[in-house]
Amino acid sequence: MVQNKSLVLAKHPVGYPVPGSDLITTSSEFDLNQAPPPGGLIVKTNYLSFDPYQRGRMRAATGLYTTGYPLNSPITNNAILTVLSSDNPRFKAGDVITTNAEFSEYQIITKERAELEQSPGGGNAGVRLLKNPLGLDPKLFLGALGMSGLTAYSSLYEIGKPKKGEVIFISAASGAVGQVVGQLAKREGLKVIGSVGSDEKLQYIKEELGFDAGFNYKKEKPDEALNRILGELGEEGLNIYYDNVGGEQLDAALGALSTFGRIVSCGSVSQTSKKPGETHGIQNMPLVVGKRLTIRGFIVFDPDMGGKYYEEHQNNLQKWIKDGEIKIKMAVTDGIDNAAEGLVGMLKGENFGKAVLKIADL
Amino acid sequence: MVQNKSLVLAKHPVGYPVPGSDLITTSSEFDLNQAPPPGGLIVKTNYLSFDPYQRGRMRAATGLYTTGYPLNSPITNNAILTVLSSDNPRFKAGDVITTNAEFSEYQIITKERAELEQSPGGGNAGVRLLKNPLGLDPKLFLGALGMSGLTAYSSLYEIGKPKKGEVIFISAASGAVGQVVGQLAKREGLKVIGSVGSDEKLQYIKEELGFDAGFNYKKEKPDEALNRILGELGEEGLNIYYDNVGGEQLDAALGALSTFGRIVSCGSVSQTSKKPGETHGIQNMPLVVGKRLTIRGFIVFDPDMGGKYYEEHQNNLQKWIKDGEIKIKMAVTDGIDNAAEGLVGMLKGENFGKAVLKIADL
Repeated sequence: MVQNKSLVLAKHPVGYPVPGSDLITTSSEFDLNQAPPPGGLIVKTNYLSFDPYQRGRMRAATGLYTTGYPLNSPITNNAILTVLSSDNPRFKAGDVITTNAEFSEYQIITKERAELEQSPGGGNAGVRLLKNPLGLDPKLFLGALGMSGLTAYSSLYEIGKPKKGEVIFISAASGAVGQVVGQLAKREGLKVIGSVGSDEKLQYIKEELGFDAGFNYKKEKPDEALNRILGELGEEGLNIYYDNVGGEQLDAALGALSTFGRIVSCGSVSQTSKKPGETHGIQNMPLVVGKRLTIRGFIVFDPDMGGKYYEEHQNNLQKWIKDGEIKIKMAVTDGIDNAAEGLVGMLKGENFGKAVLKIADL
Repeated sequence: MVQNKSLVLAKHPVGYPVPGSDLITTSSEFDLNQAPPPGGLIVKTNYLSFDPYQRGRMRAATGLYTTGYPLNSPITNNAILTVLSSDNPRFKAGDVITTNAEFSEYQIITKERAELEQSPGGGNAGVRLLKNPLGLDPKLFLGALGMSGLTAYSSLYEIGKPKKGEVIFISAASGAVGQVVGQLAKREGLKVIGSVGSDEKLQYIKEELGFDAGFNYKKEKPDEALNRILGELGEEGLNIYYDNVGGEQLDAALGALSTFGRIVSCGSVSQTSKKPGETHGIQNMPLVVGKRLTIRGFIVFDPDMGGKYYEEHQNNLQKWIKDGEIKIKMAVTDGIDNAAEGLVGMLKGENFGKAVLKIADL
């Protein structure tokens, strides 16, 4: 028997989740030597992903995402795990797999799940063998080579429709999605402007990732920053806004977009943890008509998104990361005891790079 | 010599334009017997269109529409006119033409304009012979068979993508665009919900136009009204919101749309005459991601809009109006002396139906 710790949703948060109150760590006994269930697996958790959409799943059911997290159960997200024992012919002990897993150190995978192939980006409960032919850091498969990277890749092309010489503005530009979008856009010959929440991140996107310009939204108002930067770049306006945050930055982007501009609506992390009455009302929506803007929200599991780009994304990104053409920064939280703090820190923008939880290295 | 009165923009309005201050009526002498300029025309104005986009053109130049109205000149819009004399082989005295004309009782058309074919919806300065084979009310060619009708037709199909059994909500539902959109949607087998600003209009869209439901936005809050109506119709949410007004109704529609819903952004007349600080900040933009909504602004002159649907629109609408399958309500203001009041009344929603100015009947 071992102690098996889990991160559990105890209450629906109001505002940012509070570790120890909304999110608590529980412990129970787990028998590592038990037989797997018929057709199932016993697995050990190595890495779990922290993603902003998890905040949405902590709400009381709204129907917006397929399921909210049930109360008093471990929360879940994409994970990399090692098979300890298997009663399923698809997998054997020692295999490294990805699936949507509990935030628990050990867990059981049922026959139904073990027999289902994981969909691109991890949109179902299925399981996939980790395919890592170039020997990359496995944590990348929770980020640039996982859901957030596929999110970036598919939506930039499907919705953003980038063209050489255009100007793109990306919020949360050093985050899991933003850093991939920005480097892809540079490869396509766009001018890239990023917003971040610290001077350290600003230096990083400009000096390490080669973005053309950026600003720290905590120090400069987004509308003023965009005006300043567009002037410095000699550009009239934005062609694409890749929106990870919503709120004031979305408003500023609506003001700075040129005619026929596109907004890729990926997230609104600046608003989703706001309490009622604290949210930012968007003032610039009337500009959508005169500028003929298109705003499109998506989820990577949508029919024309992740699945359509999955092979291309894996083939290109694995190669470009191996070659050093695309750099990926990760923010690793160590251990289940720190998981709640890591998750809330990511929601507050305190992470620097793609946020992951390490339970045990491979 | 006759007196030739014109409606002139004297100042850029703040809020709603003020007749007698922002918009004034001027008069000058006009020689009806003068020779037309070489290659040009002398014309008499019969009807002029009032459209919400004209408010945008009364601003100081913003770059959003191709041109703002110059100060101290007559404003312009689509018109129906009679040729008094012609030096151009395309036209002869007595011809009835459409062009983008001054709000003046009489005017001169230059050779350059007389030689240019008017583009669909009236997007250029060209001139077209009115083609009215079914002998319909000529004022219709400023509305249902003109720019606002083509706006409705092209955007409903190109952006709204209506499918039988879906639910559409249309604001300003008895207006120039809304009444056409709603009746087209009924023909396509959709359930149609309309919002209007008076009980008389509400009765009209339900009893005369056959809309399934509606509400008076001055008496019922839009979010509560949509919830009530969706419940009564046994529907979970909207599939399309056809937005003519922006503001609170846009916010309510964002809340009531189902996944993969579309917003056709045609106008925001509730906001464009608001003074700074009075506009409504949109709270529900974060729902765009989770619901995977698409919001698209357009102008009828855009490449994939009016021109693409022009023939189809003329052929179908002329026939359906002649047959009585589609009913068109018009609000006629009589005489240039009343033009400013008519235009401002339309901006305030005081008109009932497509607003036009009559100078002289054909």
